[in-house]
Amino acid sequence: MKIFNFSAGPSMIPHKVMDKAQKEFLNYNGMGIGVSELSHRTIEFSDIIDKTENNIRKLMNIPTEYSISYIPGGASLQFYMIPANFLINWWGCEYIHTGYWSEKAIVEAQKCCYVRVSSSSRDANFRRIPNLRKWKNNPDSSYVHITTNNTIEGTQYHSYPEMEYGVPLVADMSSDIMTKVTDIKQFDMVYASTQKVLGPTGLALVIMKKKLTERSYNKNLPTMLDYNTYIHEKSMHNTPPTFSVYMLMLVTDWLLEQGGIETMDKINMLKSEVIYEKIDASGGYYKNLVEAPHRSRVNIVFRLPTKDLSELFIHQAEEEGLLGLRGHRSVEGIRASMYNAMPLEGVERLVDFMDKFERTHG
Amino acid sequence: MKIFNFSAGPSMIPHKVMDKAQKEFLNYNGMGIGVSELSHRTIEFSDIIDKTENNIRKLMNIPTEYSISYIPGGASLQFYMIPANFLINWWGCEYIHTGYWSEKAIVEAQKCCYVRVSSSSRDANFRRIPNLRKWKNNPDSSYVHITTNNTIEGTQYHSYPEMEYGVPLVADMSSDIMTKVTDIKQFDMVYASTQKVLGPTGLALVIMKKKLTERSYNKNLPTMLDYNTYIHEKSMHNTPPTFSVYMLMLVTDWLLEQGGIETMDKINMLKSEVIYEKIDASGGYYKNLVEAPHRSRVNIVFRLPTKDLSELFIHQAEEEGLLGLRGHRSVEGIRASMYNAMPLEGVERLVDFMDKFERTHG
Repeated sequence: MKIFNFSAGPSMIPHKVMDKAQKEFLNYNGMGIGVSELSHRTIEFSDIIDKTENNIRKLMNIPTEYSISYIPGGASLQFYMIPANFLINWWGCEYIHTGYWSEKAIVEAQKCCYVRVSSSSRDANFRRIPNLRKWKNNPDSSYVHITTNNTIEGTQYHSYPEMEYGVPLVADMSSDIMTKVTDIKQFDMVYASTQKVLGPTGLALVIMKKKLTERSYNKNLPTMLDYNTYIHEKSMHNTPPTFSVYMLMLVTDWLLEQGGIETMDKINMLKSEVIYEKIDASGGYYKNLVEAPHRSRVNIVFRLPTKDLSELFIHQAEEEGLLGLRGHRSVEGIRASMYNAMPLEGVERLVDFMDKFERTHG
Repeated sequence: MKIFNFSAGPSMIPHKVMDKAQKEFLNYNGMGIGVSELSHRTIEFSDIIDKTENNIRKLMNIPTEYSISYIPGGASLQFYMIPANFLINWWGCEYIHTGYWSEKAIVEAQKCCYVRVSSSSRDANFRRIPNLRKWKNNPDSSYVHITTNNTIEGTQYHSYPEMEYGVPLVADMSSDIMTKVTDIKQFDMVYASTQKVLGPTGLALVIMKKKLTERSYNKNLPTMLDYNTYIHEKSMHNTPPTFSVYMLMLVTDWLLEQGGIETMDKINMLKSEVIYEKIDASGGYYKNLVEAPHRSRVNIVFRLPTKDLSELFIHQAEEEGLLGLRGHRSVEGIRASMYNAMPLEGVERLVDFMDKFERTHG
């Protein structure tokens, strides 16, 4: 039975990538040792890190004024590094609050300074992204932070706020980076933990305008928490998570082979349409509460009429090889995460299962 | 040709471990997905993290009052987390300075407080560990920090300083943890990056008395830099580097199969004796400058009569399948790192090569 893993992260990795990594696990590049055993100071690893950067630049069309870094600790450590590195005063950093993960980012920033939550969709139970068309950032903000896709709530920005007064826009893109065409020039910094879209856990990918750190008022940061360390030493100040970088190389190789982000964008749109159509056609048996214009294309959350039915759904889906459909432990219900690695075939299998389940238990 | 990798880190991983990891890379525990794709919130991963902890407790005989945590960022991030978490005043933390890595730890602590370097072997060019028999720690120190094995200088503590006044002893054991029998109760905290002895890069293993953080005067630490986060949430506050934890499980499984640390201790002693005997018998052709009682059993550094000969040695060794023998970029010469994964066979191959090289170029 073919297995499809709908887990939110760590999540499915393209089969071709896993296959290649397995084949060369004991013998990379004919060296007789695996990447896991390879010193980061070798030419071979240097090639891996360079190739990964080139792939990312190509895929996301990233100009040279942006640096690309690999930082351990996932997005959670970034929640702290961002204020620690980017504050220009102690009162003005600004967050748009859209759910569980944006709140985590806010709490961490509050350890550094006063945080303005200048827009929030809490009143709407986070079932939408706030309306930002008339919103304006403050002129003295150190930066504005958004969470482009809300993995738990199943919401996603489909357009981004425009910044004024030269205030930098910082985005947590952990769950939708490289899943749709995005203009990097709309952002001053973008970051993403790797275990959702980009491969296995172990890193945050950080893309930022190199001169962003120049404004910082904090000049005595710990070495490992200072973006300059990663920029100036090409993420090799200490031993980086080498296997994770290698996997990121393979995943970005694969993305380029598939036709890049444009192709992914189209497939991901199609995949999400298939599921949302099924939900909307179920007459309320499957219920997604997100306001339609803000629905996420990569994390689709829905509920069944009762909690027992949800449990049965998860259980029976698993028996049919559809794994990882349980919603986040902070909410009830179902979540289908389908990043780039999930093929249309997997989504069709899920829809067929939803059909059958509704007929049997509806 | 059988390859032996003498790299200081990332370094050789036991073949049996690599083989098992390769076999189940695409299909862990019959799930149809690999560990890299496995959600950290599954029972299967929970079992991995529990088993790893049990293995470590068993191998190192660790009492329950010590916690075991997996923290991203390697030893370098620990250099900052230690003072950030353990200072009880701003003036008194104490470091024993024994080389390159202890200096890195000192520099990072200096970002937090005044640092007392209360003993140092700098005057001896770090060719020994300072004589600590008559040394006494200060009563008001927050802690004393040592580096038990100096990877670059090739020196190692073979006994540890005794603490007075209840001051905690903290040890960076990155390059000799689990390579020799050690009484954990001599230490209040021990840490090690994993890419030398314990498997691939991606983690620091942190073993500490749980109540050590209670003394701290800093109560508003960033979540990801607070040891309590890892202790209370079993290293699962955010997505841990799952594949690295899994590899650590396999490596510790393997260690137990081999007979535990006692067996490793004996083999590592033997391995280092073979090389040091060869060096000492070469009449100065191979030169190790470390004072004999402080020689490291796991990182053996030596030089040849000229720099050109060293280069030729490294080059020809590589052609014979002996990799990673170049000394650290901060020093000249040769370094043979031989942690637990290096079998006696590899060391014999190296000694045979040293023999042959000396006969040809001596």
